[in-house]
Amino acid sequence: MGEFELIARHFTRAAPAGSAVVLGVGDDCALLQPTPGHQLAISSDMLVEGRHFFAGADPEALGHKALAVNLSDLAAMGARPLGFTLALALPSADEAWLAPFARGLFALADAHACPLVGGDTTRGPLTISLTVFGELLPGRALRRDAARAGDELWVSGRTGEARLALALRRGEPWARGELAEVQARMDRPTPRLALGQALAATDGVRAALDVSDGLLGDLGHILKASRVGAEIETAALPVAPALLALDERHRLECLLAGGDDYELLFTADVSAHADVLTAGERAGLAVTRIGRLTTAPGLRLLDARGREQRLSERGFDHFAN
Amino acid sequence: MGEFELIARHFTRAAPAGSAVVLGVGDDCALLQPTPGHQLAISSDMLVEGRHFFAGADPEALGHKALAVNLSDLAAMGARPLGFTLALALPSADEAWLAPFARGLFALADAHACPLVGGDTTRGPLTISLTVFGELLPGRALRRDAARAGDELWVSGRTGEARLALALRRGEPWARGELAEVQARMDRPTPRLALGQALAATDGVRAALDVSDGLLGDLGHILKASRVGAEIETAALPVAPALLALDERHRLECLLAGGDDYELLFTADVSAHADVLTAGERAGLAVTRIGRLTTAPGLRLLDARGREQRLSERGFDHFAN
Repeated sequence: MGEFELIARHFTRAAPAGSAVVLGVGDDCALLQPTPGHQLAISSDMLVEGRHFFAGADPEALGHKALAVNLSDLAAMGARPLGFTLALALPSADEAWLAPFARGLFALADAHACPLVGGDTTRGPLTISLTVFGELLPGRALRRDAARAGDELWVSGRTGEARLALALRRGEPWARGELAEVQARMDRPTPRLALGQALAATDGVRAALDVSDGLLGDLGHILKASRVGAEIETAALPVAPALLALDERHRLECLLAGGDDYELLFTADVSAHADVLTAGERAGLAVTRIGRLTTAPGLRLLDARGREQRLSERGFDHFAN
Repeated sequence: MGEFELIARHFTRAAPAGSAVVLGVGDDCALLQPTPGHQLAISSDMLVEGRHFFAGADPEALGHKALAVNLSDLAAMGARPLGFTLALALPSADEAWLAPFARGLFALADAHACPLVGGDTTRGPLTISLTVFGELLPGRALRRDAARAGDELWVSGRTGEARLALALRRGEPWARGELAEVQARMDRPTPRLALGQALAATDGVRAALDVSDGLLGDLGHILKASRVGAEIETAALPVAPALLALDERHRLECLLAGGDDYELLFTADVSAHADVLTAGERAGLAVTRIGRLTTAPGLRLLDARGREQRLSERGFDHFAN
C-alpha cells in the first residue's frame, strides 16, 4: 500500500447514523439515499495553492474554508447538505499538514451533518477539489433568475469584515483595527445553511446567492439573470463594529465590494417581510432589508436622504479581492 | 470577465432533453431530479499531469479518458449516469488545448446521456477533477463485499491490450505488434455502462468492479471485502488477437496484471449463468466465466489440466503500470 493510499485512510470514517449515506468510501462509488420527492443540489470548487490561498496557509483553516465555500453554495440555493467528495493533490504525504487539514474539514462537516462519502488522493501540486451534494423540495430552490421588480433586497449578517481582515494582513494603509477581531471572518467563514433552508421554506422569498466576490458584484448576477434593476439604501447596510473606525469611503467599499463574506443576499416579495424576519430569527442570524428591486435596469446607491450616490465602478473593481 | 470565465463558457451547454438536469451551469448549484425511488451513486477522480498522463498527451483522448474512468466506476456499480461536474486547473487559457479536450469529453458525455452540470475552471498546474453521479434501485448495487463462495467469476471483453499498448509506446523489449492496433484500449477506454446496468438488473449477480489496476489486483479487493478466495482457470481467460504474438509469460502477465482495461470483473451465483450470458448479449459485449470463488482464502491460478500455476507475486507487482 502506497503512502497516498495510507493518507486516504485519514479521510475514511464511518458515516454518521441517520445520514443519507448507504455506502461510503471504499467501493467504486458511494451510495446515497436522498429523501423521497427531493431534488439534488450540486456544487464544485477547486482551490489551488498560490491562487486561492497562500503557500503556507494554516491547514486547519484551509480544511474549514474549502468545505465552507461549497456549503455556502448549498445555503444560497436553500438546500440541506447530504455529503461531499474530496479530491486532493499533495506534493508529499505530509502528516503535519494532513492532520490539521482533516481536523478543520471534519469539524465543519460534523457541524452540518455532511459526511465525506468518497474522493481521491494523489501526488501533485497542492490542489483541493470538493463537490458537495444537498437536497431540497422541487420548486423551492432560491435561483438567481427568480427575482422580480418590487422585491425587497435583503442581506444576512454583515459584510466587509473579511475584506478588512485581508487589508490588515496585507498592511493596506487605510486599514484600521486589530486583525484578530476580524480574521475569522476571512479564514473561517460560516456557511449560512440554516438561514438558506429557512428562506427556501418561506413563501415569497425568491432569488438568493452567497456574497463571495462582493455585494455589488454578486447582486449584479441576480439583476442580470432576473432582468431587473436595484436600489440599495447605503444607510441601511448593517455595519460591523470593526468597520466603524474606517473612513466613510473605505467603510462603504468594504460593505459593498469586499468579498469572502459568504453572507446570503436575497430578494423577497414585500408581503413576506415579516416571514423573512422570522426565518432569520429561527436561523439565529440577523437579516436586514437594504433596498429594493426595480423595473428600471441598473444599480443605484441611495444615501440616507434618498439622493443617488455616485461611486466609481472602476474604484470598486480595483478594490475587489 | 477574465480569461478563465471565458474558458468556463466552453463548458456551458444546454442540458439534453429528457435528462435529469433541472438547472445546469450558472447558479450557486446545479439541480438534478433523480428518478423517484432510486439511490445515488457518486464517484470522484483527480488526474494530474505528469502523474496520471504524460505532459503533452493528446487533449482529445484526455477529455475522453477523464470521463471514461469515472463512468467506469458507475458501470461497476450498475448505475445509470445522471451527470457530472468538472473542476479544471490550467496553466494558461490555451484554446488549442481546450477545444479538443472539450470535444473528447462531450463526445463521450453525449454518447452516455451524461451532461456536465457544473464545476470550476481556474489557473494552476494542469489538473482534471471529475465527479460523476448516477442512479440505481436500492439493493441492486454491485458492491465489492457481496461476493459469496461458490459464485462464478466473470470478466467482460478482454484484458491486457491496454498494458500491451503501454509497453509498445515505452518500447519494452518483450512487446510485439502494432501500437495502432491496441492504442485505443489505453487512450480511449470504453466504460461498460450497458453491461453494468444489465448485470445489476439480473438476479444472482453479486459483486463487481472495473479492472483499472489489473485483474488479479482488483480481484483482491473483492476477495478482501467479501472474505472469500478464488480460483482462476487461466486457459479460460479471453485473449485478444494482439496478445497471441507474445510469449506465454508476458501474455499471462498482460491478461492478469495489465491495468487500464476498464472491463468489468464480477461474480454471480451458478444458477444465474444463462442470465449473465443474456445480459452480455443485451449489452453487446462478450462475458466469460474465468473461475469461481472459494471458501478457502487466497487466490489460486489453475492451468488447463487443473494444476496450480505458481506465479511470482513480486513479478506481477513489478509488471503493474
